[in-house]
Amino acid sequence: MSRHPVKDHAGGRPVVPRSGPLRPLGLGEVRITGGFWARRQRTNAEATLPHIAYWLERSGWIANFDPDRLNGAGDGSGHAGREFADSEIYKFMEAAAWEVARSGDPALDARLTALADRVAAAQDDDGYLNTAFGHPGRPPRYSDLEWGHELYCYGHLLQAAVARARTHGGDRLFEVARRVADHVCRTFGPAGIAGLCGHPVIETGLAEFARVTDEQRYLDQAALFVERRGHARLADIEYGRAYYQDDVPVRSATVLRGHAVRALYLASGAVDVATETGDTDLLRAVATQWQTTVARRTYLTGGMGAHHQDESFGDDFVLPPDRAYSETCAGVGSVMLSWRLLLASGDPKYADLIERALYNVIAASPALDGRSFFYANTLHQRRPVPGPDAGTPSRRAAAGSRAPWYEVACCPPNVARTLASLAAYVATADDEGVQLHQYITGGVATQLPDGRRVAFEVGSDYPYDGTVVIHVVGHEQRPWTLSLRIPAWADGARVIFRGEQRAVVPGVAAITESFRPGEEIRLTLPVAARLTAADPRIDAVRGCVAVEHGPLVLCAESADLPDGVELDAIRVDIDPGASDITPGAIETDAVAVVRAHRTAPADRPWPYPQPVGTNTHASEADSAVELPLIPYHAWANRGPSSMRVWLPT
Amino acid sequence: MSRHPVKDHAGGRPVVPRSGPLRPLGLGEVRITGGFWARRQRTNAEATLPHIAYWLERSGWIANFDPDRLNGAGDGSGHAGREFADSEIYKFMEAAAWEVARSGDPALDARLTALADRVAAAQDDDGYLNTAFGHPGRPPRYSDLEWGHELYCYGHLLQAAVARARTHGGDRLFEVARRVADHVCRTFGPAGIAGLCGHPVIETGLAEFARVTDEQRYLDQAALFVERRGHARLADIEYGRAYYQDDVPVRSATVLRGHAVRALYLASGAVDVATETGDTDLLRAVATQWQTTVARRTYLTGGMGAHHQDESFGDDFVLPPDRAYSETCAGVGSVMLSWRLLLASGDPKYADLIERALYNVIAASPALDGRSFFYANTLHQRRPVPGPDAGTPSRRAAAGSRAPWYEVACCPPNVARTLASLAAYVATADDEGVQLHQYITGGVATQLPDGRRVAFEVGSDYPYDGTVVIHVVGHEQRPWTLSLRIPAWADGARVIFRGEQRAVVPGVAAITESFRPGEEIRLTLPVAARLTAADPRIDAVRGCVAVEHGPLVLCAESADLPDGVELDAIRVDIDPGASDITPGAIETDAVAVVRAHRTAPADRPWPYPQPVGTNTHASEADSAVELPLIPYHAWANRGPSSMRVWLPT
Repeated sequence: MSRHPVKDHAGGRPVVPRSGPLRPLGLGEVRITGGFWARRQRTNAEATLPHIAYWLERSGWIANFDPDRLNGAGDGSGHAGREFADSEIYKFMEAAAWEVARSGDPALDARLTALADRVAAAQDDDGYLNTAFGHPGRPPRYSDLEWGHELYCYGHLLQAAVARARTHGGDRLFEVARRVADHVCRTFGPAGIAGLCGHPVIETGLAEFARVTDEQRYLDQAALFVERRGHARLADIEYGRAYYQDDVPVRSATVLRGHAVRALYLASGAVDVATETGDTDLLRAVATQWQTTVARRTYLTGGMGAHHQDESFGDDFVLPPDRAYSETCAGVGSVMLSWRLLLASGDPKYADLIERALYNVIAASPALDGRSFFYANTLHQRRPVPGPDAGTPSRRAAAGSRAPWYEVACCPPNVARTLASLAAYVATADDEGVQLHQYITGGVATQLPDGRRVAFEVGSDYPYDGTVVIHVVGHEQRPWTLSLRIPAWADGARVIFRGEQRAVVPGVAAITESFRPGEEIRLTLPVAARLTAADPRIDAVRGCVAVEHGPLVLCAESADLPDGVELDAIRVDIDPGASDITPGAIETDAVAVVRAHRTAPADRPWPYPQPVGTNTHASEADSAVELPLIPYHAWANRGPSSMRVWLPT
Repeated sequence: MSRHPVKDHAGGRPVVPRSGPLRPLGLGEVRITGGFWARRQRTNAEATLPHIAYWLERSGWIANFDPDRLNGAGDGSGHAGREFADSEIYKFMEAAAWEVARSGDPALDARLTALADRVAAAQDDDGYLNTAFGHPGRPPRYSDLEWGHELYCYGHLLQAAVARARTHGGDRLFEVARRVADHVCRTFGPAGIAGLCGHPVIETGLAEFARVTDEQRYLDQAALFVERRGHARLADIEYGRAYYQDDVPVRSATVLRGHAVRALYLASGAVDVATETGDTDLLRAVATQWQTTVARRTYLTGGMGAHHQDESFGDDFVLPPDRAYSETCAGVGSVMLSWRLLLASGDPKYADLIERALYNVIAASPALDGRSFFYANTLHQRRPVPGPDAGTPSRRAAAGSRAPWYEVACCPPNVARTLASLAAYVATADDEGVQLHQYITGGVATQLPDGRRVAFEVGSDYPYDGTVVIHVVGHEQRPWTLSLRIPAWADGARVIFRGEQRAVVPGVAAITESFRPGEEIRLTLPVAARLTAADPRIDAVRGCVAVEHGPLVLCAESADLPDGVELDAIRVDIDPGASDITPGAIETDAVAVVRAHRTAPADRPWPYPQPVGTNTHASEADSAVELPLIPYHAWANRGPSSMRVWLPT
C-alpha cells in the first residue's frame, strides 16, 4: 500500500525503544475488557472522540487546511484559532488511530482517512505544512520560533503518523509525515537554520519516526534539537528562557522547570534520543530531573505545574492546593516521560507515578459523560463556579468547572489519545516473562524471544477493591516469570499462589513457574483508606492530611455535606474513621468516610488575630459531622461545588 | 497666570472632598522633618525622582510626545513602550508637583514646566491627547477601550494637573488637562460613546478636577463612568469581566475583585463621586467592599491581590505567602481608597490600614538607595534570585529582587508620588481640633473654621520606638481637641499629659484642652514584637506565626542566618523571645530576635509520607538557633536572599 517501509506495525505501541530492559506490549498484546478503564475507554470512544471531532470542525480548525481558506483572500484573514490549531487535529488523528486499532470502528477509520486527505492537500511541494504561517498574507515560515509552534505541530503530526503506522501500516498520513520530517531535516539540519521550537515535542516525534522507519537521520535531527536547547538561542521573554527550557542544556539540568508541558515533552524526547544513541549521561540526567521533580515539585495527585501565569513549575515545595494549576496535558506529558524511563530502567517507581497520574489527573479531566474537560486540576476549590454552557468554548484555563471546549484546546485530544492507547501502558516483557504494571481488567498475550507463549487474564474491581486475580490461559510448558508491581503505598500486600500466601513488599513481586492453564495468582493490595501527610516544606498544606484509597486521591466535595456545613470550616479527626470500601454504581460514590468537626470561624474585621491560639478554634462552635470522601477524579460531576483534598486536622 | 479659576491651591492636598467629617491637612499645614519617612522622602527626592526621569527619557516614552515621533513615518512605527506609557510621564509629573511643593526645588520645577510644554505639543485641537492611538499609522482613537488605556492615561494627567494646581496654581499642564477633561465630557458624555475604560482612574481624576475647578460637569462625567461599569459593556476576556470590574455594578458589589489596582482605583473614584453627590448608598457599598476585602482578601502586610496571572484578588482567604503578588501599585491604590473613606467617615480603622500599607508595601518597594523597586511584594521567597543589572529594564513583575526599571513601569512613579505627598496623609482637622493619624516626626499647623490656631511639633523614633512626644507650639487661648489614633494592635497604650498617665484603647484618644505653648503630650505605643496568627481559613499559613513590631511586619532573611541554616527548615518556639527594640543606623538591623529550631527535613523520593506524624519532624535533627527578624520592607537590600514572614511553629 505504501512505498515507504514501515517497521513493526503489528504491536500498536506508542513507544518502541531499540533497546532497554523492558519491551513494551501494545494493543495487539494487551486488552482492557472491563472495570474502571474499560468504562473510561468506552466513554472516550462513544462520547469524547465525536465531541472533539464536532468542535474541531465547528471551530474551523480543520477547514484551515482547505485550499480556499489556506490561500483565500491573501490578506491573512481566514485562519481560525490560535497558531497551534493544527496540532489539535493531529492529536485527534493520533487518538483516532489508536481507537481504530482498539475497537476496529470502520466509520472512525474512514473519517481518519478522509482527514488525512484534507491535511495532505495543505502540504507544500517541499513538505512544509502549516496553516498559520507561510501562506499569502500570513507570517513567513519560521518567522517566530518562540511562539509560532510550527515544529510543535509537526511533532504531533509525526506522533499521529507513527500511531497509524504501528496499528495499520503506512498510509497517506504517513507519507505526509515523511515529507514533513524530510523537510525539517533539510531546514533545521546541521547546514540549516540553527534554531529550535519554543514548544518541544518535535524531538520525540522525530525519534519515534526514526524508530518506525529505521532511518538514522530523523534520530540525528531529534538529537540535534535536544542538544540545541539550553543555550539561549530563543529570545528572553517575560517568563524568562526557563519557560521553554532554553536556560540550561538538557544534560546539565537537575530538575524540570518552566512550562510544565514543554518540560515533560522535552524530557521525553531526550529519553528517546538517549535510548537510541546509548547516551547514558543524557539518560541519567533526565532520570535525576524526574526524581527531583517528583520529590519537590509534584502534587499528591501526580499533577505538575503550580503556576497559572506561565503554566510552569514553581520553586521547590511551592505546591499550593488552592489554584493548583496541574494542567491536564502535564499529566499526559508525565505519563509519556515516566513510561519511557520505565522502559529504559525497569524501575517500578515510574509505573507508580503513571498510575497516580492516570487515576488523579488524566481521569479527572473529562466529566463522567466525556463531553467536558478540566484544563487545570486544582486540589482545592473554595467556591462553586458554574461552567460555561455546552455551546461556548472557554477562554479560561482556570475554573472550578469543566468546559466543553477551550480556545486553547490541547487537553481534550491529549486525554483522548492517552485513553485510546491505554492498553499499551499496562504491561511489558523481557527475556524471561511479563511485567504487569497496571491492574486493569482484561488480558495479556505475548511471546517471549525464545518462543515461550505467555497469556493470562486479569480480573479485578481495582482500584475500589484491592484483589487482583490473574488466570493463566496459555499452554506454555516452560517456566516463565510473572512480575507484579507492588505500589509504594501497598504495605501489607500479599500474593496467593497454589494455596500459599506470601507477603510482598513495595517494588516488584516476581513468580517464576511453569504455570498451568487455569491456574490463578491472587494479589491483594491494601487499598483501604489511609492518611497521608506532606513534607513540612510544602507550606501550603501544613497542618493538613489527605486521604488516599489505593491509587486514588480522595476529596471532600460540598455536594456531600449537610446543609450549612462549609468545607472551609471543617477539621478532621486525626484518626481516620475510614469505612470499608463502598464500590459504587456511579463513580462519585464515597469510598471512605472520616469523622470531622464543624467549626465556625469568626469573621473578624482583620483576619490576623493575636494572641496565638485563636487559630486553634479554642473558643469556637464545634460539632461533629460525617465527611464522605469521593475519588478526586470524580468531583464536579454533580453541578458546581466546592472541594478540597487536603483536610485541616 | 491662568485664565482658569483654580480653587484652593494653597493646601497641597491630594483629595479635597466638598463635605465630610474630616478636612484633610495638606503640605501647607503638615511638615515631615525627620525620622523614617523624612529619610524616605529624601531618598525619593535625591535618588528616585532623577532615576525615574532618566528612565522615562531613555525609554523614549517622553519623546513619544514630540511631533516627529507622533506623526513621524506615518506607518505607526516610532511609538516606544506599551499603550499606557503616557501615564508614567503623568505620574512622574504628579510626583514632581508634590516634590516641588515639599522642597521648593527650582530645578525640578523647571523640569516640570518644560515637560508640560512637551506634553502640550502633542495635544490635538479638540483636546485629544494620546501618543499610542489616534495618529497616522496608529490605531484609531478609542478603538480598544478594553486595553487601550486612553482614559486611564487621562486620569493620571488630571491627577498631575490637580496636584500642580493645589500646590502652585493653574499653569500650562492645567490648561492641557482642562482641554482633555472637556474632550472627555464631549466624547463620553450622555450623548457620546456609552463606553468606559478597561482600567479605571479617570473617575477619581475627573472628580478631583471637578473639585479644583468647581465645575459640575466633570463630576457628572465621573459619576457616569462609575455607573456605567458593571453592566458588561466591555468585552468578555480570558480573565472574565471581573478583571476590570465590569461584572457587577459598583453599588451592588460586596467585595473587591478582579485586577487589584483597577478595583482600588475604581472604588476610590466611587467614594469621590459619592462624597460630592451625597450618595450614601454608594458610599456604604464601597465601605462594605473595603471591609470584606480587608477581612478576607488582604495580606498581613496590607498588600492586596494574590494572583500573578491576572494581578487580581483571589477568592476569600486565598492568600499564599509564597508567590504573593501584592503589587506595589495596589498598595498605592489601597492608601488612596482608605484615605477617602477615612475623610468620609472619620473611622480610624482606615488610618490603621494606611499605616500598614505604607510601612509594609509602599516602603518595601524601593531599595534603600531608591534606585530599584519591587513590582510584586511576596511574603515568602524560597530561593535567592539575582535582580537584573542596573542597565536592564525587567520584563518580569515577579521576582525575589528589585529591578531598576520595568517594561511596565507603573510602580516606581506611583511610589514616588505617594512619598512626595506623604505629609498630606498625616493629619486632618474638624471644627474642634486636629486628628493625628500617622506618627511622623515633624509639625502640624492649621486654623480651625472659627479661627482657632492649632500648631504642634511631633517627635519620635517611631516605628522603632513607641514613644511619640507632641509639643504644642501655638499660642491659641481657647481649648481645642487633639485626637490621636491608637492602632488596633496597641493594647496597653498610654497618654501622659500634665503629669497624669492614662490608659487608652485602640481607636481614638482625644484630649480637649486649652493647651499652653510648650506643653507636652506623650503617647506611648507598645511596639515591642508580638506574635500574630491567621484566620484558620487562610490555609496557606496554617501552623505558622508572624512577628510584628508596632506597624512593622517582620521577616527572617537568609542574610542573617548562620551558615548551613535554611529558612525553609526552621521552626520557631511558640513564645517569642523578642528582644528589646534595637533601632539601627541602617534599616536592615534586626528589631527582634526569636528562638528557633533548626530542622533537617528528610529528602524523600515522594514528599507525601505516611503515617501522619512525620510532618512534625519527630525523628529529625533539631538544634536551636537565634533568628533575627528585620522589618519586612527592608529585605533584599543585602544581595539576593531568601525570606519569610510566616514562620512555622
